[in-house]
Amino acid sequence: MLDELREAVYNANMALVKSGLAPLTWGNASGIDRASGLFVIKPSGVDYAALRPKHLVVVDLDGNVVEGDLRPSSDTPTHVALYRAWPEVGGVVHTHSTYGTAFAQAGASILCYGTTHADFCPGAIPCVRALTREEVEGEYEVNTGLSIVEHYRVNGLKPLEHPGAVLMHHGPFAWGKDAASAAVNGEILENVAKMAVLTRAIDQTAKECPAYICEKHYSRKHGANAYYGQS
Amino acid sequence: MLDELREAVYNANMALVKSGLAPLTWGNASGIDRASGLFVIKPSGVDYAALRPKHLVVVDLDGNVVEGDLRPSSDTPTHVALYRAWPEVGGVVHTHSTYGTAFAQAGASILCYGTTHADFCPGAIPCVRALTREEVEGEYEVNTGLSIVEHYRVNGLKPLEHPGAVLMHHGPFAWGKDAASAAVNGEILENVAKMAVLTRAIDQTAKECPAYICEKHYSRKHGANAYYGQS
Amino acid sequence: MLDELREAVYNANMALVKSGLAPLTWGNASGIDRASGLFVIKPSGVDYAALRPKHLVVVDLDGNVVEGDLRPSSDTPTHVALYRAWPEVGGVVHTHSTYGTAFAQAGASILCYGTTHADFCPGAIPCVRALTREEVEGEYEVNTGLSIVEHYRVNGLKPLEHPGAVLMHHGPFAWGKDAASAAVNGEILENVAKMAVLTRAIDQTAKECPAYICEKHYSRKHGANAYYGQS
Amino acid sequence: MLDELREAVYNANMALVKSGLAPLTWGNASGIDRASGLFVIKPSGVDYAALRPKHLVVVDLDGNVVEGDLRPSSDTPTHVALYRAWPEVGGVVHTHSTYGTAFAQAGASILCYGTTHADFCPGAIPCVRALTREEVEGEYEVNTGLSIVEHYRVNGLKPLEHPGAVLMHHGPFAWGKDAASAAVNGEILENVAKMAVLTRAIDQTAKECPAYICEKHYSRKHGANAYYGQS
Repeated sequence: MLDELREAVYNANMALVKSGLAPLTWGNASGIDRASGLFVIKPSGVDYAALRPKHLVVVDLDGNVVEGDLRPSSDTPTHVALYRAWPEVGGVVHTHSTYGTAFAQAGASILCYGTTHADFCPGAIPCVRALTREEVEGEYEVNTGLSIVEHYRVNGLKPLEHPGAVLMHHGPFAWGKDAASAAVNGEILENVAKMAVLTRAIDQTAKECPAYICEKHYSRKHGANAYYGQS
Repeated sequence: MLDELREAVYNANMALVKSGLAPLTWGNASGIDRASGLFVIKPSGVDYAALRPKHLVVVDLDGNVVEGDLRPSSDTPTHVALYRAWPEVGGVVHTHSTYGTAFAQAGASILCYGTTHADFCPGAIPCVRALTREEVEGEYEVNTGLSIVEHYRVNGLKPLEHPGAVLMHHGPFAWGKDAASAAVNGEILENVAKMAVLTRAIDQTAKECPAYICEKHYSRKHGANAYYGQS
Repeated sequence: MLDELREAVYNANMALVKSGLAPLTWGNASGIDRASGLFVIKPSGVDYAALRPKHLVVVDLDGNVVEGDLRPSSDTPTHVALYRAWPEVGGVVHTHSTYGTAFAQAGASILCYGTTHADFCPGAIPCVRALTREEVEGEYEVNTGLSIVEHYRVNGLKPLEHPGAVLMHHGPFAWGKDAASAAVNGEILENVAKMAVLTRAIDQTAKECPAYICEKHYSRKHGANAYYGQS
Repeated sequence: MLDELREAVYNANMALVKSGLAPLTWGNASGIDRASGLFVIKPSGVDYAALRPKHLVVVDLDGNVVEGDLRPSSDTPTHVALYRAWPEVGGVVHTHSTYGTAFAQAGASILCYGTTHADFCPGAIPCVRALTREEVEGEYEVNTGLSIVEHYRVNGLKPLEHPGAVLMHHGPFAWGKDAASAAVNGEILENVAKMAVLTRAIDQTAKECPAYICEKHYSRKHGANAYYGQS
C-alpha cells in the first residue's frame, strides 16, 4: 500500500539523519497521500540504522494505524493536526536539530537577518508559545499541532510561505508540499538558525534585514515571477 | 570469561569514539555482570584504533584485576564506587566530551530548557562539587565516585532517572542499565549540553522548561505508562 | 566550447560543496576566458549531486547565454558586473557560508586579528553596504555587483589584494585569478570569519593585528619578494 | 637519508590534516635526529593531498637545506630556534587551528579550567607576546622562535611540561619528544582551547581549576609515579 510514498517518506527520514538534524532517534518525517487521506510515518523510537521502508506505518487522519506492525511515532497526532488544518501540506518533519531547538528553548523567534533566510520565508521563523498545563495534561500531541495551527491562523501566516516554526521549550517543526521538501525545509531552518546565533554573537543589536530586500529574495525564488532555479 | 560482556563493553567504548565523545584516548566505558560481581573495562591510555575486545580488563568490585594483561583504566576505582553504590546500574562511561566538560569546568548544572533534555531526565543534569584537597590527596579516583554518589543521596536523585552528571573541574560521567545505554546516555548528555550553551547564547536569561512539560516528556518515554518507542 | 574552463569551473563548484561552503544549493562559482570574453557558470538551483560539467552554462559579458540548456545562476549579472569592472579577475564565487554570512548579516567587516587573515589580505575583509530600495527594485543582481565594485573604488582596494568581501544582509563573494583560486579564497574567508567570531568571544575588545605584522605576512606570501610556497 | 624520520614526519603532517588542525595548507610538522643534528620538515605551501614522504626537506640546525628539491616551510627558522634552545625536544608543529588561533588573536592565555587541560600541562597554556616591529622587520621567523624561548626562560617553564603555546596575533606552536607527540600535543591544545571558550561562554567568571587538582592529574599521567597508560 502506498509503496511510492513509503519510499519517499523513508528517504525523507534518512535525509534528516544524513544532514545531522536527528541525533540519536530524535526526529520523524511523514508524507501524505491526499487522495486516500492516508499518511506514512516513521515508527516510534526505531534506530535509523535499522529502519527500512517496510517498517514505516500507514495512518489515517483520525490517527488510526491502517498498515504496519510497529507503533507509529509518538508525535503522530501532531502530524494529524497539521495535515487536517493545512490541506496544501504534503509532508511534515519534526526534529530536535541543535540550533533550531536552542531557539525553541530560548522562546525566541528566528529573526530574518539576511537573504539566506529570506530565500526560505519572508520574515521571522515564528516561535510558537509553550503549551499550557491543561494542554499538556490533555491530548498533548494533538495540542502541540493545534498550537502551531493557532499561531499561523492568528498571525495570518500561510503554511507554505512560512514552512517551519519552533515550538517553545520543544523544537522545530517543518513542512512542505511533500516529505522531501519538508526535510529540506527542516535543514534550511537549522542552517538559518545557526547563522542567526552567530549574527547575534557578532552584534547583539544586529538589525533585521529590510523588508524590501527580504521580499525581493523571497519573490525571486517563490513568487509568481520567480526566476531562481529551473522552471 | 564474560565474552559477551566483553564484546558489549568493546562496542560501548567504540560508540564513544564514533559519536565524537572521546577525542584522543579520553574516555572509558565499562559494563558489569552482577551475577559474578565482575566488570569489564577499557585498559588505560590505549589508542582506540588499536583496541580489540581481548584487550579489555576484567575487574572485581574490590578493584582487583581478575583477567587481562593490560592495566585497567586509571578511573577504574570510580567505576567500582558507582557499581557498589548503585546495584541497578549495569554500565558506566566517563568522557571528556566538549560541551559536557565545559559545564563541568564552569561548575554549572545543565538546566532543563526543553523537551530534548526532559526526554533524558526530569530536571537539571547535576554538577557535582569539586573534590577537596584531602579527597584528591587520598584515594582520588575512589573519592571521585563517592562524591557523585553523595550528591545523588543528598539530593534524593535516582541514578537511572538522572543517568548522567558532570563533576566540577573534571567532566561528564554517565551510566545506564548496561554499557550500551551508558554510552547512549553520554551522547545525549553532550547533545543536551550543546543545546543549553546555545540557548543561553540566544538569551542569557532563558527560563527552565516548566515542570509540567518536563514531567510529561519524561513519563511518556520512561514512565509506567510510557508510549514512546516499541514495547 | 571552452571544455577546459568548463571542467575547472565544475571543480570549483564542487570544491565549494566539499569544503562545506555551500549547504543545500546555496552557492555558485564561475570562471572566465578573457580571450573570448565568455565565462562559464553554474546553472540555477541545480543539486550539486546531479551537477556535471555539461550542465554548466556559457555566458557573455552582456549576460547572454551562449551555450547551455539550463538557465544560468540567478546571480549571473553579479558575476558579469565583477568581470567587467575587474579585468584582472578570472574566477568568482558566491556562497552563503555560515560564518561569512553571519558577518554580512551583522553588517560588520571581518577585522584582521592575526596572521592567518593577513596571509589572505592586508587588512579587514570589507562589509559592503546594503543595497538601497531603488537598487533592489531595479536591476538587483547587477547592482549587487556594482555595490561591491563601488566599495573597492571608493576605498582604494585592489580586487586581487582583497579577494573577498561580504555584502550586508546577504553573504560572501570571493574571487581570484581563476575559478580554483576563487573557491580557495571563499574557503579562507570562511575560516578567517570563524576565527574572528571566536576571537571576539574570548575578548570582546580584542585589538586588530598591528599593521607591521599584517604587512610582513601578506608580503612574504604575495609580495614581490615572496618566499612562501614553491616558486 | 633519515628514511625512518622522514616517514614519521610525514605521518605527523598528515595527522594535522586528519585532526582538522591544518585547514588548507596552514601547518607544518618537523622532527629531528639529534645524533646528526638534522631535521625533516614539510615543504612550503604544498597541498597535503599531494604530499609524499619524498617531498620532505632535510635541514641542518643552521637552517641550510641538506637534502630535498623543494623549499622548506617558510617557518623553518622558527623550528631551528626551538630545536637549538631545547635539546629535549624532538618534534615541532605549527598550526592555525581554529580555537588555538582565536586565543592567539585575542592575546589570551588558555587558562586551566579542568582536568582535561591538566592532563596536558600543569597550568595555563601561555600566550607569548606579539613580536615588535624590529623583530618583524629583522629575521622574522627566527625571532618568532626566540620569543617563545624567551617566554619559557623568563617564566621558568619547561618545554616538555608545557608542550604548547600560542603566539599573540599568530597561532599555536606545539612540540614533544618526537614529531608524533608534537602533533598529538597540537591536537590536545586545540581541544582544550575549544573547551575553554565554551567554559567562558557558560560563565564569564569561571575560576581556574585549583592547583591541587591540576597537579594530581598532571602527575598521575606524567609524574615519576604516573599510573595512567601502560608502562
